[in-house]
Amino acid sequence: MQNMKIHALANIEHLKVHGRTTNSLSPLTLFWTGSALELNAKGSELWMEVEVDYDLYEPWISIIINSAPVGRQMLTKGRYWICLFRGMNESVVKNVRVVRDVQAMNGDESSSLQIHAVKFDGQFLPVEDKQYKIEFIGDSITSGEGTIGAKAEEDWISMWFSATDNYTALTANALNADYRVISQSGWGVLTSWDNNPNYNLPDYYEKVCGLLTGEKNERLGALQEHDFDAWQPDIVVVNLGTNDCGAFYSPEWKDEATGKIYKQRLNEDGTFNEEDIKRFEAAAEKFLTKLRAYNKKAQIVWAYGMLGNEMMPSIYRAVDSYKRTTGDLMVSVFQLPNMTDETVGARSHPGKLAHEKAAAELSAYLQELLK
Amino acid sequence: MQNMKIHALANIEHLKVHGRTTNSLSPLTLFWTGSALELNAKGSELWMEVEVDYDLYEPWISIIINSAPVGRQMLTKGRYWICLFRGMNESVVKNVRVVRDVQAMNGDESSSLQIHAVKFDGQFLPVEDKQYKIEFIGDSITSGEGTIGAKAEEDWISMWFSATDNYTALTANALNADYRVISQSGWGVLTSWDNNPNYNLPDYYEKVCGLLTGEKNERLGALQEHDFDAWQPDIVVVNLGTNDCGAFYSPEWKDEATGKIYKQRLNEDGTFNEEDIKRFEAAAEKFLTKLRAYNKKAQIVWAYGMLGNEMMPSIYRAVDSYKRTTGDLMVSVFQLPNMTDETVGARSHPGKLAHEKAAAELSAYLQELLK
Amino acid sequence: MQNMKIHALANIEHLKVHGRTTNSLSPLTLFWTGSALELNAKGSELWMEVEVDYDLYEPWISIIINSAPVGRQMLTKGRYWICLFRGMNESVVKNVRVVRDVQAMNGDESSSLQIHAVKFDGQFLPVEDKQYKIEFIGDSITSGEGTIGAKAEEDWISMWFSATDNYTALTANALNADYRVISQSGWGVLTSWDNNPNYNLPDYYEKVCGLLTGEKNERLGALQEHDFDAWQPDIVVVNLGTNDCGAFYSPEWKDEATGKIYKQRLNEDGTFNEEDIKRFEAAAEKFLTKLRAYNKKAQIVWAYGMLGNEMMPSIYRAVDSYKRTTGDLMVSVFQLPNMTDETVGARSHPGKLAHEKAAAELSAYLQELLK
Amino acid sequence: MQNMKIHALANIEHLKVHGRTTNSLSPLTLFWTGSALELNAKGSELWMEVEVDYDLYEPWISIIINSAPVGRQMLTKGRYWICLFRGMNESVVKNVRVVRDVQAMNGDESSSLQIHAVKFDGQFLPVEDKQYKIEFIGDSITSGEGTIGAKAEEDWISMWFSATDNYTALTANALNADYRVISQSGWGVLTSWDNNPNYNLPDYYEKVCGLLTGEKNERLGALQEHDFDAWQPDIVVVNLGTNDCGAFYSPEWKDEATGKIYKQRLNEDGTFNEEDIKRFEAAAEKFLTKLRAYNKKAQIVWAYGMLGNEMMPSIYRAVDSYKRTTGDLMVSVFQLPNMTDETVGARSHPGKLAHEKAAAELSAYLQELLK
Repeated sequence: MQNMKIHALANIEHLKVHGRTTNSLSPLTLFWTGSALELNAKGSELWMEVEVDYDLYEPWISIIINSAPVGRQMLTKGRYWICLFRGMNESVVKNVRVVRDVQAMNGDESSSLQIHAVKFDGQFLPVEDKQYKIEFIGDSITSGEGTIGAKAEEDWISMWFSATDNYTALTANALNADYRVISQSGWGVLTSWDNNPNYNLPDYYEKVCGLLTGEKNERLGALQEHDFDAWQPDIVVVNLGTNDCGAFYSPEWKDEATGKIYKQRLNEDGTFNEEDIKRFEAAAEKFLTKLRAYNKKAQIVWAYGMLGNEMMPSIYRAVDSYKRTTGDLMVSVFQLPNMTDETVGARSHPGKLAHEKAAAELSAYLQELLK
Repeated sequence: MQNMKIHALANIEHLKVHGRTTNSLSPLTLFWTGSALELNAKGSELWMEVEVDYDLYEPWISIIINSAPVGRQMLTKGRYWICLFRGMNESVVKNVRVVRDVQAMNGDESSSLQIHAVKFDGQFLPVEDKQYKIEFIGDSITSGEGTIGAKAEEDWISMWFSATDNYTALTANALNADYRVISQSGWGVLTSWDNNPNYNLPDYYEKVCGLLTGEKNERLGALQEHDFDAWQPDIVVVNLGTNDCGAFYSPEWKDEATGKIYKQRLNEDGTFNEEDIKRFEAAAEKFLTKLRAYNKKAQIVWAYGMLGNEMMPSIYRAVDSYKRTTGDLMVSVFQLPNMTDETVGARSHPGKLAHEKAAAELSAYLQELLK
Repeated sequence: MQNMKIHALANIEHLKVHGRTTNSLSPLTLFWTGSALELNAKGSELWMEVEVDYDLYEPWISIIINSAPVGRQMLTKGRYWICLFRGMNESVVKNVRVVRDVQAMNGDESSSLQIHAVKFDGQFLPVEDKQYKIEFIGDSITSGEGTIGAKAEEDWISMWFSATDNYTALTANALNADYRVISQSGWGVLTSWDNNPNYNLPDYYEKVCGLLTGEKNERLGALQEHDFDAWQPDIVVVNLGTNDCGAFYSPEWKDEATGKIYKQRLNEDGTFNEEDIKRFEAAAEKFLTKLRAYNKKAQIVWAYGMLGNEMMPSIYRAVDSYKRTTGDLMVSVFQLPNMTDETVGARSHPGKLAHEKAAAELSAYLQELLK
Repeated sequence: MQNMKIHALANIEHLKVHGRTTNSLSPLTLFWTGSALELNAKGSELWMEVEVDYDLYEPWISIIINSAPVGRQMLTKGRYWICLFRGMNESVVKNVRVVRDVQAMNGDESSSLQIHAVKFDGQFLPVEDKQYKIEFIGDSITSGEGTIGAKAEEDWISMWFSATDNYTALTANALNADYRVISQSGWGVLTSWDNNPNYNLPDYYEKVCGLLTGEKNERLGALQEHDFDAWQPDIVVVNLGTNDCGAFYSPEWKDEATGKIYKQRLNEDGTFNEEDIKRFEAAAEKFLTKLRAYNKKAQIVWAYGMLGNEMMPSIYRAVDSYKRTTGDLMVSVFQLPNMTDETVGARSHPGKLAHEKAAAELSAYLQELLK
């Protein structure tokens, strides 16, 4: 192709980065699911240079042209070029979004996805911000685990994750909002599904992508303090509690370093142990306080219920207590529709239909808050 | 990955090839949209070596695991490996289908997609044939043009084609059938949409992929005689006529070699010129005769109407005449539902919803024929 | 109720009558399914005086207020008052339609439904004509047989008929059209489903409601010549052929008066006897000629296929032949979607869902014709 | 009709009465919406003798044959016969349900609907109980106000109420349950929408239909103690709170007898006055205690949210407090889907689509409780 020029991202005047990341564009690291590079590209052919690594869990991307998903592919190791489009009318502007389709991977310190440059025969135009900004914080549901793949699938692999067939993207689209996702499968507010107290989202909230591990991620800036002022959301959606619930039904977790045992206990009659459920509520309330500290103007919505709603009373108690203590009125609870046999996806997780239903109800609720 | 072994396709005991092609597996050429390599793979990681070329129109593939589409990507030039899955439970069998997502490209003699080998750490198991076999013959509709992409798209490029969101695949799935597609955008029974008499499907029906051009395709076997005995369909669906209709409304076509002018004419009152419409009907009837010659036991269904149904009376006359002349009763006409404003896709062609609707109605009709 | 006044229909300045009937309003006879009395009533309470008789098949009505169906009831014998609404805001205008929900009943010469008067405490305002006029001619499908009732129902009774959950009403609504229905269960173009040559719609087309029998109906004006000039439709939809098809599969019919036997014959190979199918086609063509004679400006659409489409080739031949002979271009054929297991209603007839689907496709087609 | 015999209800061996009422069948009084007379009738023709009165709000009924609604009509004043079916196969059993379609009317002490007898030419067979029993307690939503009628309707009249297009009936059908409804438009747990403290459901719960007024209703038994032992539900659904919320936004109510003023107050910042919202919570908790006293084995579900969910935190607090105090675990809260612009019905109330959606979600939740 004649006239193709390579542009380091840092040299492009007009581009838009979605998702929490560092300020670096040399290269750009896409840490979180749903994070993306967006361009308005007037030209006929566009390529992108990625650098990818992993030990266990490879990244995937979706390519979205003019809001329509056109491709989705696994990114194998290496530094190489990917064609985003070719053969198009050079005088028409294309909106292009390359979206990371897989969550940040706490379990694989090698896993990373970076974009160095693009190759293009045209010019880039400004990308406008959308009307609203939403931040979603959650677990496997919010990571879109199981929205891709046959119902029979049981392997825990990157392939079954999706950022695009996900209630986060669908809700943001419905509200014409930019959005970010902070999520990790299996994690909760207080502990993970298997009682590990280190696997909770709140402890890592202040960092760029604090749940990542290993030297390389540190070098990439994952553990830097996040610059909250640079992107203040109108709404923060917290979809947590599902794994905190699971902890009551899972075996204890032993901290090998200290020998300490952790376990959310059930009473003999099957109810939650009072002391333990209060620890969850205290953690939830504390998280709300932290969220408010960093998100001054946001409506905070605890949205829960796609995989059962057993924790709902506790969530209401925590939110109530937070509101009474602080007088903060911009916090509410919203029940998401439960997954059914018709809407289940892979790995017994919500499928595409479940996410569409959740997005329809959630976006109607958020729309009211935005009025 | 330990234990990964490279297997030339020709050395794999159990594999299944979909779509008309040559007997060669060294390499396998996927000529037509919807053609595919299918494997039942018991192992944890699988790669595939492709060789791709083109001048204008690159091929795309979809990757389907256990009947769920998991990836779709552009294939750029070169010979290289693509990972189909990794990190999966090695003791579980995965059904994997790699489907060519773009039609054979008459307009680009360089365009080709071949598969040389796979790299795998497990073993391949037999792939059963499905209960029925269906052949679809058509134009851009049958090529799935416009089922991907925003409504605003106008470029004629590979990206907007899909074999998976297409009424052919959806109908075959609904009937539990293997299927093949013979199709070309813009072509008809008698002429193309712009009156070119060489761009008709019937003339090329006997070849493996006769509408391809150039030396390379000849070398790949595209112009070989097709072995009809090896795959006798239960149903042949002909979805042609849309471009023959367009010819009446398009400028004349001039054969530069002979200087001869071709034009399907309209009368002054807007009706079809009697002589010209009869030429279409004769061509349709002749095609039926050819189809029967090669498909002895098949129900032949002329299915038409997704982009208007102006040719329906002519199609009925042609089928009538064929049936009377031959006494062949296994031929019928079926009207497909017209595209609407709600179901339009890219390039003013039927979108995914239009294909789903067409597939629902067509498969119900074919189901009756198969009883 | 104070201020209630009885108004003989003939004395009401503003009212609208739907459906073919005589000029008499003293009383008004509602002969056909879908025929109706429509009022724009500004007042708080409205009653209607009906006179009803039958031996076998009682009439039913639906009451529609501001386009929403609010009631549906059997009308038992006698002359009595029915309340259409009460307790409403007297200063608001209500559009009220009382619709006959059951077909004219050839099989019961006693069956009749008449409206004598209304009782009202307000005033009547003008009822505007809609943008278009459509006439539907058909059989049990067009009579809405089976759109009400459980799938298990087998009795042939009035209760299972509906004019409102019927593709005729739904199509007219979608196109913002006034409409009329001429229909009779079991009847065809040439013969009834059981080969009775007297049970065909065309022979009775010129009369107000010519298929009714008995002295009373004659006295009511059913056998008068219909005044076609008074209501010229933009579209005539003919949904006939289903029973003509059935005749080929049903026993012969013997005219007891003459001893003559009537039977549409099948060949040994299951195809239609050539001579007999031609008789159907001749009847269809003749009917088109008659329809054109009375409906000068209408698009005539033969819409067929909700209960199988075996007659479609014949219908196309008949329409073709008619068009060639006459040069009349405003005639076309449209295939309606076949009923499925999901959309079946009572008595193995199309249910509400089948009518909704048919109306969606038919109205999209007619919309194009009206452009 | 020969062989027609009149049977006083009290003399019929097999019949089933739905809904709270007295033991009297001479005649049977249908007090509540959704209350019904059910018969399994083997014969060809069936009539029913009703006695109806009212001053303002007339009753309506729906007639349901073999689970399919076939008729719905206003019942005007008087004692008269209504035909339920005729002309049917005498040897087939028909399940017939005559359902009161309008709520008990606190505002009209004359309003009553009674059934004296049936006239029949066949025999009645036993009507089996369904697998489960559900009691619904609610307000206008549960009364089905607005599920019938155009969106523009504003009159408060019986016509817009429906027991059949209502989430109560749809939920009961989905779960194969018998059901009863206790409901009144505008009423709440503590007060009505306009702060009247007498218009609350809990105070009248022990009576047969305690919210009815006047001497006649007393004579009919409305104020008798209800016999809870005779019908113990598996589930009690409480859908209240919507009007208690409205009270905060409505003017004060003055008790003309005592001069006392009642008002649920808003704070200046728009939040609920703490003291007043606590009164609501206390009332809700007290109602739960009462419900448990009378429904020993039932799962109690507070289902709320079809017209906003502002009271949800309070409802959770009340339920929490009740559970802690009592140790009763069989109480839970479920959020119903909010009405949207697409699902609104008449009088700004949930339409048929809103009720269908609510029933789908509620029945999935209840199904889990019933496991």
